[in-house]
Amino acid sequence: MIERIGLSMEKVKENGTMNNYEVETPKNITIKGILSLLMQSIEEKDGRSVISLGMGDPSAYSCFHTTPTAQQAVADALLSDKFNGYSPTVGLPQTRKAIADYLSRDLPYKLSSDDVFITSGCTQAIDVALTMLARPGANILLPRPCFPIYELCAAFRGLEVRHFDLLPEKGWEVDLDAIEVLADQNTVALVIINPGNPCGNVYSYQHLKEIAETAEKLKILVIADEVYGHLAFGNNPFVPMGVFGSIVPILTLGSLSKRWIVPGWRLGWFVTTDPSGMFRKPKVVERIKKYFDILGGPATFIQAAVPCILEQTDEAFFKRTINILKQASEICYDRTKEIPCITCPHKPQGSMAVMMKLNLSLLEDIYDDIDFCFKLAKEESVIILPGTAVGLKDWLRITFAADPASLEEALGRVKSFCQRHTKYIR
Amino acid sequence: MIERIGLSMEKVKENGTMNNYEVETPKNITIKGILSLLMQSIEEKDGRSVISLGMGDPSAYSCFHTTPTAQQAVADALLSDKFNGYSPTVGLPQTRKAIADYLSRDLPYKLSSDDVFITSGCTQAIDVALTMLARPGANILLPRPCFPIYELCAAFRGLEVRHFDLLPEKGWEVDLDAIEVLADQNTVALVIINPGNPCGNVYSYQHLKEIAETAEKLKILVIADEVYGHLAFGNNPFVPMGVFGSIVPILTLGSLSKRWIVPGWRLGWFVTTDPSGMFRKPKVVERIKKYFDILGGPATFIQAAVPCILEQTDEAFFKRTINILKQASEICYDRTKEIPCITCPHKPQGSMAVMMKLNLSLLEDIYDDIDFCFKLAKEESVIILPGTAVGLKDWLRITFAADPASLEEALGRVKSFCQRHTKYIR
Repeated sequence: MIERIGLSMEKVKENGTMNNYEVETPKNITIKGILSLLMQSIEEKDGRSVISLGMGDPSAYSCFHTTPTAQQAVADALLSDKFNGYSPTVGLPQTRKAIADYLSRDLPYKLSSDDVFITSGCTQAIDVALTMLARPGANILLPRPCFPIYELCAAFRGLEVRHFDLLPEKGWEVDLDAIEVLADQNTVALVIINPGNPCGNVYSYQHLKEIAETAEKLKILVIADEVYGHLAFGNNPFVPMGVFGSIVPILTLGSLSKRWIVPGWRLGWFVTTDPSGMFRKPKVVERIKKYFDILGGPATFIQAAVPCILEQTDEAFFKRTINILKQASEICYDRTKEIPCITCPHKPQGSMAVMMKLNLSLLEDIYDDIDFCFKLAKEESVIILPGTAVGLKDWLRITFAADPASLEEALGRVKSFCQRHTKYIR
Repeated sequence: MIERIGLSMEKVKENGTMNNYEVETPKNITIKGILSLLMQSIEEKDGRSVISLGMGDPSAYSCFHTTPTAQQAVADALLSDKFNGYSPTVGLPQTRKAIADYLSRDLPYKLSSDDVFITSGCTQAIDVALTMLARPGANILLPRPCFPIYELCAAFRGLEVRHFDLLPEKGWEVDLDAIEVLADQNTVALVIINPGNPCGNVYSYQHLKEIAETAEKLKILVIADEVYGHLAFGNNPFVPMGVFGSIVPILTLGSLSKRWIVPGWRLGWFVTTDPSGMFRKPKVVERIKKYFDILGGPATFIQAAVPCILEQTDEAFFKRTINILKQASEICYDRTKEIPCITCPHKPQGSMAVMMKLNLSLLEDIYDDIDFCFKLAKEESVIILPGTAVGLKDWLRITFAADPASLEEALGRVKSFCQRHTKYIR
């Protein structure tokens, strides 16, 4: 649903004051908004620690720490005095080149620097993609559940949103039949997030190929959000959507944030993985470049560190992260199995979050997922995101990017909470 | 003029291909675009150095170097390991507080943290201001000449632009009569840039007050771009527009970029200097906050360094910068006086740039400002921005944020160039 946007100033000529503002804001719930309300509802007691399984930011836990290689590369670039000035608005040439090379390792063709545009985190890459596709009447197909920034961004940029379901019983695969029903002449793109946020799924090569073929059939682009790229620890290896760029043009979005555990560095990318060259047309490139002229972009010295970060990060660092995430996801899966009112339809295989279904009929005095999360925060000082925030009412999104001990403790508290609220306790 | 924007995909159903894109891009010239074309037109000869007086980025010159205080503060924040994670999208609380305190030093009232939103450079602050004011049919009043990102941003966000003149014979003051003629029911704001880019002017207290009163009379906001705040070295001291916030609500835009000589750090601010509280209404605040949720924002560790940077930078550092800029501006003014076809109507008093008028009737084979700049680049390896890029045909914008020796050398070459192209040499 699109809200008409615009700060409309009603001038009250009668009394000559300028205080009658009429504002229309997108109605979307934001993750940060709801988490902050949950945090406020916590009641301090007995010095019990607050544990948040709400946000995909593992950097708060000491077991998740970026590699010294990355940190030193940024410090060196800063202290070199060479990168205090502006970079080109699309990014430093060496940074664009390094990202093109990094992504090309996993593709059957080679990206060039010109395919890569540097953004202020993956969030800005999302905005670039949606703004470049927006035009009067256009619509975009988003998964349900979805990372909610897509819907908020679509509302601000005037793109109509249509939702297709991800199917929990099929490992959160895209409902391809629904896509064919939803798409029309005004559909510009479909979005997939792989590895999945909020579902923790990792799509197979075959399913990604079917998505590409469906998009090609419908003549729509694919926006592939791969901010969790390479964070896969189940049966399916991570396959970048760009592998199918020769079937349909792909816009690949990514960042250092998750794989390098530095979401605060705001270093992302918007990449046209499109060997057919639709995005290399001069007019398209000119428009993208001009849009970058009005964006802020990441700090030049952080950009300057990217070639070193991408080339020199030790494989052992990545393996360590994957191992902790795998262990954490298993704790999450196993502990919630012990809680009757919570069901996980698909064991997480990647990313840092998983969706769990609430069975409210087993609980008394809990009305919905939001009520569940607020009571949980108040009674147990544990924060979990209600599924409503990602488009699925009466589900929960649990982030397992936490240290194993905190995760055990938090899920123990969730279990106590559920036991206490279970109907007909005998 | 507003261009309709939107990437419109024409689906060629006949042949089943998706390669017919129709793109409409804002037609605006960008400074970086034209400077890059000028750079390409330079002919290497005799190992002569290229000197650019085109961009407001002094960090390339060793005499303009940020203070070690700032650099160390950022390095410390990075290496502390405390700021690798996300910040709130509106900015870290301590950063908002520090900027509120910093700006309040020069105001007759005190700003609160809630008035301050952290942006990725002043560029993103411009986008926030214009996007928050855009609505169907709205228009905004921009100065002529103007920093061209305003017009580009207005085009992308669907705001109609109307221009009022800055008056060179009155020290580039705003033509207030023109404002009254241009404004109508749909006018949302007027923009002033002070200290001035591209003109190098610094407005008096009295003129700023008149601007505020005019805006109040017309019931429009003032967007005050103070990215060059405090960089004043003439008769008028720098007065922040926020001083007049009790007359009319002001949106103040700024950054560390210029005063601290770190444009590449991308640390800016969007501040509601509005003691009447129009921008503190819950609905307005909610909308601004949601917009920040889709922006990238600057790196958390750079934000974390801001309190130390604002509180601990030595006054001597600021004085040194001002002294070099004053000296550089005088070289620029004096050397161009020796060139008959170039006139400076107003000696620069601030910022890092000045506008000079070209008298083309004294030159042969030079058709306009763009032709002048391209031939100058080709023949003399000196880059100057044609006035057309900032809205004034047959003017030049010269950036004097360069070391004095380079400036002398560059202007000597401009003099030779003009002599060589002067009509009727005897």
